[in-house]
Amino acid sequence: MEKAILIIQCKDQKGIVAKVSDFLYKYQGNILEIDQHVDKEIGMFFMRASWELESFAIKKEQIAKTFEIEVSRLLDMKFDLYFNTPKPRMALFVSKLSHCLFDILSRYYSGQLEVEIPLVISNHLDLKPVVTSFRIPFYYLPVDKSNKENVEKEQIALLKQHKVDFIVLARYMQILSERFIQHFPNQVINIHHSFLPAFVGAKPYHAAYERGVKIIGATAHYVTEELDAGPIIEQEVARVRHHNSPADLVQIGQDVEKVVLSKAIKYHLERKILAYGNKTVIFY
Amino acid sequence: MEKAILIIQCKDQKGIVAKVSDFLYKYQGNILEIDQHVDKEIGMFFMRASWELESFAIKKEQIAKTFEIEVSRLLDMKFDLYFNTPKPRMALFVSKLSHCLFDILSRYYSGQLEVEIPLVISNHLDLKPVVTSFRIPFYYLPVDKSNKENVEKEQIALLKQHKVDFIVLARYMQILSERFIQHFPNQVINIHHSFLPAFVGAKPYHAAYERGVKIIGATAHYVTEELDAGPIIEQEVARVRHHNSPADLVQIGQDVEKVVLSKAIKYHLERKILAYGNKTVIFY
Amino acid sequence: MEKAILIIQCKDQKGIVAKVSDFLYKYQGNILEIDQHVDKEIGMFFMRASWELESFAIKKEQIAKTFEIEVSRLLDMKFDLYFNTPKPRMALFVSKLSHCLFDILSRYYSGQLEVEIPLVISNHLDLKPVVTSFRIPFYYLPVDKSNKENVEKEQIALLKQHKVDFIVLARYMQILSERFIQHFPNQVINIHHSFLPAFVGAKPYHAAYERGVKIIGATAHYVTEELDAGPIIEQEVARVRHHNSPADLVQIGQDVEKVVLSKAIKYHLERKILAYGNKTVIFY
Amino acid sequence: MEKAILIIQCKDQKGIVAKVSDFLYKYQGNILEIDQHVDKEIGMFFMRASWELESFAIKKEQIAKTFEIEVSRLLDMKFDLYFNTPKPRMALFVSKLSHCLFDILSRYYSGQLEVEIPLVISNHLDLKPVVTSFRIPFYYLPVDKSNKENVEKEQIALLKQHKVDFIVLARYMQILSERFIQHFPNQVINIHHSFLPAFVGAKPYHAAYERGVKIIGATAHYVTEELDAGPIIEQEVARVRHHNSPADLVQIGQDVEKVVLSKAIKYHLERKILAYGNKTVIFY
Repeated sequence: MEKAILIIQCKDQKGIVAKVSDFLYKYQGNILEIDQHVDKEIGMFFMRASWELESFAIKKEQIAKTFEIEVSRLLDMKFDLYFNTPKPRMALFVSKLSHCLFDILSRYYSGQLEVEIPLVISNHLDLKPVVTSFRIPFYYLPVDKSNKENVEKEQIALLKQHKVDFIVLARYMQILSERFIQHFPNQVINIHHSFLPAFVGAKPYHAAYERGVKIIGATAHYVTEELDAGPIIEQEVARVRHHNSPADLVQIGQDVEKVVLSKAIKYHLERKILAYGNKTVIFY
Repeated sequence: MEKAILIIQCKDQKGIVAKVSDFLYKYQGNILEIDQHVDKEIGMFFMRASWELESFAIKKEQIAKTFEIEVSRLLDMKFDLYFNTPKPRMALFVSKLSHCLFDILSRYYSGQLEVEIPLVISNHLDLKPVVTSFRIPFYYLPVDKSNKENVEKEQIALLKQHKVDFIVLARYMQILSERFIQHFPNQVINIHHSFLPAFVGAKPYHAAYERGVKIIGATAHYVTEELDAGPIIEQEVARVRHHNSPADLVQIGQDVEKVVLSKAIKYHLERKILAYGNKTVIFY
Repeated sequence: MEKAILIIQCKDQKGIVAKVSDFLYKYQGNILEIDQHVDKEIGMFFMRASWELESFAIKKEQIAKTFEIEVSRLLDMKFDLYFNTPKPRMALFVSKLSHCLFDILSRYYSGQLEVEIPLVISNHLDLKPVVTSFRIPFYYLPVDKSNKENVEKEQIALLKQHKVDFIVLARYMQILSERFIQHFPNQVINIHHSFLPAFVGAKPYHAAYERGVKIIGATAHYVTEELDAGPIIEQEVARVRHHNSPADLVQIGQDVEKVVLSKAIKYHLERKILAYGNKTVIFY
Repeated sequence: MEKAILIIQCKDQKGIVAKVSDFLYKYQGNILEIDQHVDKEIGMFFMRASWELESFAIKKEQIAKTFEIEVSRLLDMKFDLYFNTPKPRMALFVSKLSHCLFDILSRYYSGQLEVEIPLVISNHLDLKPVVTSFRIPFYYLPVDKSNKENVEKEQIALLKQHKVDFIVLARYMQILSERFIQHFPNQVINIHHSFLPAFVGAKPYHAAYERGVKIIGATAHYVTEELDAGPIIEQEVARVRHHNSPADLVQIGQDVEKVVLSKAIKYHLERKILAYGNKTVIFY
């Protein structure tokens, strides 16, 4: 079923739901989902609505324009309009660890993710056989301090060439530059292997072991200029005990990482995430 | 803040959200929460909306009537209108176990529950000191096979006299008769000490121990004629291990029971539960 | 590191730990793990001990015999002695669903599971490409009522030929006969897609949806003659809400299934499971 | 049943389990529980054993001495010997929030905690009626910068006078001085209302709200000189969503706090916690 998804944010005020739902009703939209949220601290209104396109009285190409004239400009809204077809195009960045990659590709294989994966980029060759077994192009771009700027240019060129909509860092062990990130605002999803904001940075499982925590976690977030500080999309945890070594924590944590990252991808694909400031509204 | 809460169910059709939100907008309702759900299997639409009463252009007493004329009858809706004042009146039924009782009363004490508790009814005297320390009237009504019908009449009389809106069975170890339950449809909340539908009936922790499960649970549900089979409101679980005795399971389970029951009470008080058929929609 | 693992069960009595640990100390065993459990209801004692083989004063081949003479027969013990090398040999049975298969194979690929997988058997061809991409032999043995007995004979022949130690039913959609199971007592692990004992049998997610539960689960257990009633190894749950369709439950549940099944495999491989009666002691 | 509990730590070496279990066997100790842990990073061995006193061949008063001579000094052990009678004596420190206090007192009331509570100390009067309804002496000792040192002296005097074994800070909103803490090493349990090490210090729920986390938590730990940095005993978490206000987080978190704190108290009472360095081994 082809559908439209409308994401709105504006100053909170009376009548927003009425006006949006009137618009959809007027043009015979069969609403599939409608969710709204008001952040009272900052007086902002957020809304997500989806409806079937088939019976809708406005042509796909005209919807944004019509909505802009009839609703959006009157209420001073920012809005995004998405369609579920064609499928979004996702690039994966990986290094050596395979657990997140396998988890994503197995969901892709079984049709659980409505996505295209035109390419995988890696700074190591280790995972090339995995990627190619799924018949996805694999680009090997090793990075070191001396070539980082050029490699990022090459990466961006590849992403543009493959018309990539968003990027998933599936345990990619390199920090992306500000310049790179600015090309993809709220379009780069990272999985950090700790329960943020605890254990920012490198080797969080070892830090968790040293601190003697009883629960470890993983955090999927949009990447921003500040390391591990972007808007959090999803988190999950697992219990550990005194007899678990740092290596155990790594292994227990990997099961959490892959589930969290795949959930974040799913929310992103379904346009269920509204990022604002350093937070996310997620209508799951 | 005084507020109104509207609960709607009707056949799914286009324009419901538009008409309800138009109604609220037309009379200057400042929407606080709006949630909707469509059960596609049965083609039913459910909605909950709350708004501030102060600035609303219709008088409290006229809202139901006006909504009935302007919206409800056009769409063939069933609806309920609630206000958060005066507070709902809850009766507690208990027997000998104190954990759920204490949990509810401590929340009541700290102002966490917007409720009046005009009375507690028990078939044992054990918990009388606890109840009276909270300055709540305690009625001791012992039950056995011979007097059950009469005791239930007495209970119902007490509940009417105290203008009780709903009843919570906080580990009350008696089965209520069909006749009793019919007086309070979806107004009697029970906590069953298993993860339903597993381990219906008596001694579920012992049954769980015998079966060797690795997780136990508790279930809050509305009471219906069929034992432990009413609409589920909330469930939660806890992990157990081979070294846990049946007594351990009881104790671990009690922590789950009290949290689950208090959540169910809170949802009920906030009118967040829409029961239909044998299910619940819960807009938390 | 090569190590020995000793699993003991006997009538509970004084001195067991002393005698076992004396034995290990006398022959210079460096204990790695030692765990014990007493089931007081039935008066049985269970123990698991592991130690390094390298410095042990008894030759690998002589340990069982020596322990039998010096300890076991004096205390009327049943014991099993295992070594971590060579790796156990596991057969996978699958049908059409790929999520558990991928999860197991990706752990196998990354070296997380200390196991050999000499073959995969399936009653459908769908997953052949997945299996062969991991370079594992795939046997296609379609089953229907008419050929079930013969197919099982063929399966058993294949398992013997490949020297299989245990079998994992990774969402294999066929019920194994008593005859088959008797060949592999507590050596067949199944993943059932519900929180047993709730929703035994077919289509548990649909049954869970009908019942309106708020939490779903999955259960890994050893297969016995009675359907879904064998000793439970591991369980896990996930929260669902009213807006989740049966299809959502399937998808949410698959994430639980694969984690639960992989944990059960890991416990089995590490000889951490002691099954007795219809229960398991698990020293994790 | 009267029982003895032995807690051991020493350098890891062969034969420890053998020697300890020989000692218990030689004097006809009926072992109830025996657990051991080796921290391989630092080469330390930890053990906890409990046994029935009734049939034990050494008199209660002689056990420590005999063990010291026959086992401990040969292996250069540190050990503690406890008995489950008389019950340990616990002081509660509170301020204004009642949820942890009620949870502890209701467990105490129902006999779930094997403890005496000779007094409650508070810097506010709010909770006096709650405490006195449980017939426990309540001491009101208001604190400000000017009198802190003297109040702590008074507190210590009261604790000595009431022969207090350990202290629980049940949301006591004052920081104890180093001097105070040194009187009670690993004998002061605090509940911090965050998932440590995230959100150390004041107002962690507000900090969690600002950061936009999807899960909040609580941490019970022994108090050391460094704020919120002592050995962690127990942690638990709860899921939150974008629509939860800071006030919601406080309320959701309180349910976690009280469960975590009560678990920590239980582990402490049962001598299941071995604190070393900045970590805990917990044999639950």
